[in-house]
Amino acid sequence: VNKCAVVQHILKAYSKEPKREQGTFFAPSNIALCKYWGKRDTELNLPHTSSLSISLGNLGAKTTIALEQALKDRISINGKEVDEDSIFSKNLSHFLDLFRPLNSVFFRVATEVNIPIGAGLASSACGFAAVVGALDQLYGWELPLSLLSILGRLGSGSASRSFWHGFVEWQAGHDADGMDSAGACLESVWPALRIGVLIVDSEQKKLSSRIAMQNTVLTSPFYKIWPEKQARDLKDLKKAIEKQDFMALGETTESNALAMHALMLTTSPPILYSQASTLEAIDKIWHYRQLGLPLYFTQDAGPNLKLLFLEKDEEAIIKIFPKLIVVSPFNIGAFQC
Amino acid sequence: VNKCAVVQHILKAYSKEPKREQGTFFAPSNIALCKYWGKRDTELNLPHTSSLSISLGNLGAKTTIALEQALKDRISINGKEVDEDSIFSKNLSHFLDLFRPLNSVFFRVATEVNIPIGAGLASSACGFAAVVGALDQLYGWELPLSLLSILGRLGSGSASRSFWHGFVEWQAGHDADGMDSAGACLESVWPALRIGVLIVDSEQKKLSSRIAMQNTVLTSPFYKIWPEKQARDLKDLKKAIEKQDFMALGETTESNALAMHALMLTTSPPILYSQASTLEAIDKIWHYRQLGLPLYFTQDAGPNLKLLFLEKDEEAIIKIFPKLIVVSPFNIGAFQC
Repeated sequence: VNKCAVVQHILKAYSKEPKREQGTFFAPSNIALCKYWGKRDTELNLPHTSSLSISLGNLGAKTTIALEQALKDRISINGKEVDEDSIFSKNLSHFLDLFRPLNSVFFRVATEVNIPIGAGLASSACGFAAVVGALDQLYGWELPLSLLSILGRLGSGSASRSFWHGFVEWQAGHDADGMDSAGACLESVWPALRIGVLIVDSEQKKLSSRIAMQNTVLTSPFYKIWPEKQARDLKDLKKAIEKQDFMALGETTESNALAMHALMLTTSPPILYSQASTLEAIDKIWHYRQLGLPLYFTQDAGPNLKLLFLEKDEEAIIKIFPKLIVVSPFNIGAFQC
Repeated sequence: VNKCAVVQHILKAYSKEPKREQGTFFAPSNIALCKYWGKRDTELNLPHTSSLSISLGNLGAKTTIALEQALKDRISINGKEVDEDSIFSKNLSHFLDLFRPLNSVFFRVATEVNIPIGAGLASSACGFAAVVGALDQLYGWELPLSLLSILGRLGSGSASRSFWHGFVEWQAGHDADGMDSAGACLESVWPALRIGVLIVDSEQKKLSSRIAMQNTVLTSPFYKIWPEKQARDLKDLKKAIEKQDFMALGETTESNALAMHALMLTTSPPILYSQASTLEAIDKIWHYRQLGLPLYFTQDAGPNLKLLFLEKDEEAIIKIFPKLIVVSPFNIGAFQC
């Protein structure tokens, strides 16, 4: 099954012509507490395991899309035109190929992002989600979010989780065409929860997570245990969220991230996203936790960390990490799942 | 089965009285290329898997033991009396309890060690091996090295590998009393092989490997894959040694060490022996290897690294790591297995 077939299947009864001048959509970024690492289908970004994320509230991407009378797509980020030969442009144009009314029709895509790009803040997740949402608006499909989630997944796996606020579960699904592999939000709200983004190195990552996870699946002898670990962690996380048990949430989140990085260490050749500064930060987190501060971390395909803590400890934690970017995931007006 | 029963079984036909005034024995330190991590019997130090090491030539411990007219053991290291209340003294005296002619008889134990103690250089391995060898001399048992290896293992698992020069395999064995769990040396010599000891932090380790490996066995979800990985690595290492294939030796050694540390990351609570300076050194090793320098590392239960390289690259590598302690494992006069 290829991407094009999935898009045609989803959109067969829907308009192929824009209904409006332009479409606009905001998608929050999301941080996985239970990771997405390894695809069972690399064309459709179908994962081996389900995953669970927290959206970053008002941090994310807002994209506006319109048809463009031109011979190519015009893509801008934060008002700046993006070079058409960049990998970013090529990837996005390739994705937009799935949605053109005619092959000869191009788009103007303007994205406003209020998070650092490529710093492990899931900018591609919210980016692809915002593009899909904006296309939905432009064409007037009014698809349910679960179908937008499937379309977003075709651009970037974790985009499937960026269509909701709060906690979002991406169910792995079983179908070959991935029609059962979509995000869905959990109803729980946890207003006191805070996510802290700790940038220890803002350079672009050396190895893309796409290649890293593929190498892990192919070569890590421990990967066959990963689905068990994921199933247990997902269950524990959902229970922790339901009970608002912060220690259980933090411990499981941290353990899940460390297991993902352990998988990478056993990949051939080994993958090590941590840097010296990452280990220093982890040491600091563990040191203060031993002193009684409820502070946990997670880490994605890069050296930066995302901290988990509660509102009551925000002041103390900012004193420890003065450059921390603090996010209140539920401080988004009315929460609706 | 307890230690005492094993010692009585091995020594039942041998002298319980010293044959000489004193006994002296030198045991080289050893570095595991295929690690020992996890016990199937914590009393007898019986491992879950076989392991393979390289001895460090003239680096190790030389111990002299004699009976002492006193009310306690007298223990010295490098000419300095060791405090009888130290953990070191207590552990050694406890081990010596297995070998006293009478409970009321004590020993004088003088050890000369020419490696830094507690810096991950397997000082306990060569230490216990030297004590056992010196007892053999003192009592005049003239036990075969395979039996001395079993006695040494009762003090410290990796001591079972410190009775030979060169490459030594410690077969895990299957018997409940561990009589089939002993070291044996490989016949291969590899004179061009070099081991570099890179001390990035000389502080004592925070968590003993004894506790760390036990927690790993009990809590790491990946531990059940470890025996498979070990069996494959051991086979690959023996083939690499036989063929003198340095790249295969280095890659398998490094992969084995990374897998052991990956296991620790997935232990609950997580165990992280690496420090910022460890990662910096690893980055450097990988950087120069990408440039074509055949240089690999292994890491034990501490932040320091042991480098593997060949004689021909020694000069270049010392330029990169000026403080490197270089060992020639086969520069020991006549090699005999």
